[in-house]
Amino acid sequence: MNQKQLLRPVADAAALAAPLANFNTADAVEFLNTLELTRAAETLAALPLPRAVKMLEAPELHRSGELVAALPPARAAALLGLMADDRATDIVHELDEEERARLIPLLGTDARQAIQKLLSYPPNTAGALMTTEYVAVPASWTVAQTLQYIRQVERTRETVYAIYVLEPASQQLQQVVTMRRLITGLPEESILDVAQVNPPVTVDALMDQEEVVRLIRRHDLLAIPVVDDQQQMLGIVTVDDVLDALIEESTEDAHKFGGMEALDKPYMQIGFFEMLRKRAGWLSVLFLGEMLTASAMQHYEDELARAVVLTLFIPLIMSSGGNSGSQATSLLIRSLALRELRLRDWWKVALREVPTGMVLGAILGCLAIVRIVIWQLGGLHDYGEHWILLAITIGAALVGIVTFGSLSGSMLPFILKRLGFDPASASAPFVATLVDVTGLVIYFSIAAMILHGTLL
Amino acid sequence: MNQKQLLRPVADAAALAAPLANFNTADAVEFLNTLELTRAAETLAALPLPRAVKMLEAPELHRSGELVAALPPARAAALLGLMADDRATDIVHELDEEERARLIPLLGTDARQAIQKLLSYPPNTAGALMTTEYVAVPASWTVAQTLQYIRQVERTRETVYAIYVLEPASQQLQQVVTMRRLITGLPEESILDVAQVNPPVTVDALMDQEEVVRLIRRHDLLAIPVVDDQQQMLGIVTVDDVLDALIEESTEDAHKFGGMEALDKPYMQIGFFEMLRKRAGWLSVLFLGEMLTASAMQHYEDELARAVVLTLFIPLIMSSGGNSGSQATSLLIRSLALRELRLRDWWKVALREVPTGMVLGAILGCLAIVRIVIWQLGGLHDYGEHWILLAITIGAALVGIVTFGSLSGSMLPFILKRLGFDPASASAPFVATLVDVTGLVIYFSIAAMILHGTLL
Repeated sequence: MNQKQLLRPVADAAALAAPLANFNTADAVEFLNTLELTRAAETLAALPLPRAVKMLEAPELHRSGELVAALPPARAAALLGLMADDRATDIVHELDEEERARLIPLLGTDARQAIQKLLSYPPNTAGALMTTEYVAVPASWTVAQTLQYIRQVERTRETVYAIYVLEPASQQLQQVVTMRRLITGLPEESILDVAQVNPPVTVDALMDQEEVVRLIRRHDLLAIPVVDDQQQMLGIVTVDDVLDALIEESTEDAHKFGGMEALDKPYMQIGFFEMLRKRAGWLSVLFLGEMLTASAMQHYEDELARAVVLTLFIPLIMSSGGNSGSQATSLLIRSLALRELRLRDWWKVALREVPTGMVLGAILGCLAIVRIVIWQLGGLHDYGEHWILLAITIGAALVGIVTFGSLSGSMLPFILKRLGFDPASASAPFVATLVDVTGLVIYFSIAAMILHGTLL
Repeated sequence: MNQKQLLRPVADAAALAAPLANFNTADAVEFLNTLELTRAAETLAALPLPRAVKMLEAPELHRSGELVAALPPARAAALLGLMADDRATDIVHELDEEERARLIPLLGTDARQAIQKLLSYPPNTAGALMTTEYVAVPASWTVAQTLQYIRQVERTRETVYAIYVLEPASQQLQQVVTMRRLITGLPEESILDVAQVNPPVTVDALMDQEEVVRLIRRHDLLAIPVVDDQQQMLGIVTVDDVLDALIEESTEDAHKFGGMEALDKPYMQIGFFEMLRKRAGWLSVLFLGEMLTASAMQHYEDELARAVVLTLFIPLIMSSGGNSGSQATSLLIRSLALRELRLRDWWKVALREVPTGMVLGAILGCLAIVRIVIWQLGGLHDYGEHWILLAITIGAALVGIVTFGSLSGSMLPFILKRLGFDPASASAPFVATLVDVTGLVIYFSIAAMILHGTLL
């Protein structure tokens, strides 16, 4: 917004903000999302500060970084300063270097330090998710003192339902008190009398967000404290941040499993070229991998020329390997993510997948044989004089390929995890590519064995 | 457990419970998961009631239904009665008819009625997720009265952080008060003075859990009230139930996208035959669909016999269609789930996917042409005298197939939604199958056009 716009009469600002007056925050956010960027920024600037803060804090607001960048710097800094630190940091994350350099010096000292500290944690860690706006009291306080303190600071804290009790001398986290227990305590009781019996569950700032979600869920918490090596508190991760992180992660995993780079924006808001870039990369890699199938086929060109009938079943056989692999991979990705299985359990899985794959392959093999028999005897197609041997070849190849698909699909997430990658980087197309090349080799080897001396 | 076991000396029970004494609930649950069923049930029976209740309420406890069924009925009923209604209902859901008939009459009237009511809602709805243990007070009360009431009932309520204010005469939900605001209110103030300004966000009992998650997240709530047509409260869905539902749903969606029926138990706990059943069904359906590729190939058998060189690229071309389709499907499934797009936006997506698919196809087409040129000129393989026309055929086929793959992959979730199915039922293997058959037809049609008079 330029100087001229800033000097526009107030009536104009009021007109912009007017349509939002009767909306609740969520509806107002949705309305803002539909506006063109400049207009959305002008509307946001025209709103009362507390309203604008609430809207910027909503996880469903799109383009929050661009919006803040489009605001007059003083306004933007005022909003960031009033926002929860963790959300303000998310927005600063989206700004480019120049915009950051312009805005950060305008922030108050407290907000600036908090945001700079939070910016230093890598994305998808407890540190990056946490807020520094929690309630902490010394262990020497009473229930009444604590309640009185909470009444004063309530508006500036992300949650007041978990109260962190610090050892007065060392400032180490000693106990956690829930609001439920606090309000049932007698006013003159020590805060420690209403504290939980178990030592607090804590995480360190570099813990992966997936693990943080798991701990919050496991211990049924509304917030989990983040501590440093000295057990001093750095911040808390609240359950609503976890909910957002979980949804974001589900989306990322779905995109990756679909065989592309994860998008961080809604479908319609990604530019055409960015969308191409996110999809073309993996698609090309898979394509180059899949080129090995052409090499494999070239290797068997003579056999193909002699027995064209073999080619008829190539797509059928190859896709079955890919499908069984994709099933196994999706199963194991989730089991590893939910910690139902650990890395060392790989052999238990392998021991299960081999017989499972063999039975599944046998089922498909029978279907294929039935199909060939019906078409041949029903006169729908003539597979040549050796059609019985051909049917046996297809059946046997399916057992081999589905077993191989199930086994390699299930082992891939373990291998990725062992190599230090996220098992969720394994995608259905990747498994299919992996299985396709080997599938062709299995098919032609079995054909060579069974059809040697007849068709081949 | 039989009569003899029930009469065993108490020392034995103490011995069973001993290893759990120093564990927190989450660790104790993990330990119980590792025990063999009978032993786990005996351990659970030996624990003090409040401890056993906490463990049964933990979402990470496996086999909770089987454990309850294995307990002495009186003990099982006592535990169910003390548990949160929603978790107790989850467990009753897992019991068979006979076990339910044995246990439900043993429950106290309140618990029995609550559980029977909750059992009547279909799975994955707000009704099935909700608990009836919330805090409701009449609008005529003061802040002090409300706080005093909460202190009394706190232990029997799933959350006390949202307080539901009912219109005294009609019992309709009038306002919601958060605990934060309640403790900052003056004792003699009316409860309505600290209530939220906006009318409460409510859901009806049959709303899908995905929509409930979205609303809780959208309005940043710790719990959402479930109401009937008369705005009378039926229960609340809390954020931790939503977290569990979300994780469960992510797993189900991942399994479905991998091309199988969703599993409801961890990988290692599914029996061999159940696992086969969950996987064989879809695998067979896909296989039957993929059989159409064999029919398509049979149709082109003459062309194949004349130009075996065409078969070399079949796996490469088909997989590219499947991969681009799988990318588009995973993108759109998430966008629809997150409500970034609605059903009526299908044409906007189609208008984007066609040019995107064409460019992606052109990129892969160029890679393929380069590959053929290098192999031919480098003397690595001889594609015959018409190799230039062949390269053009492959390139053009890739543009057609990748465009078709992107378009049909992106439209499939819309079509499923329109037909009333969950868009997440679309799977990568399903899209691949859909694209494979059409891909072959596109390939051979383009080949017939370009190679007519030369190779064909």
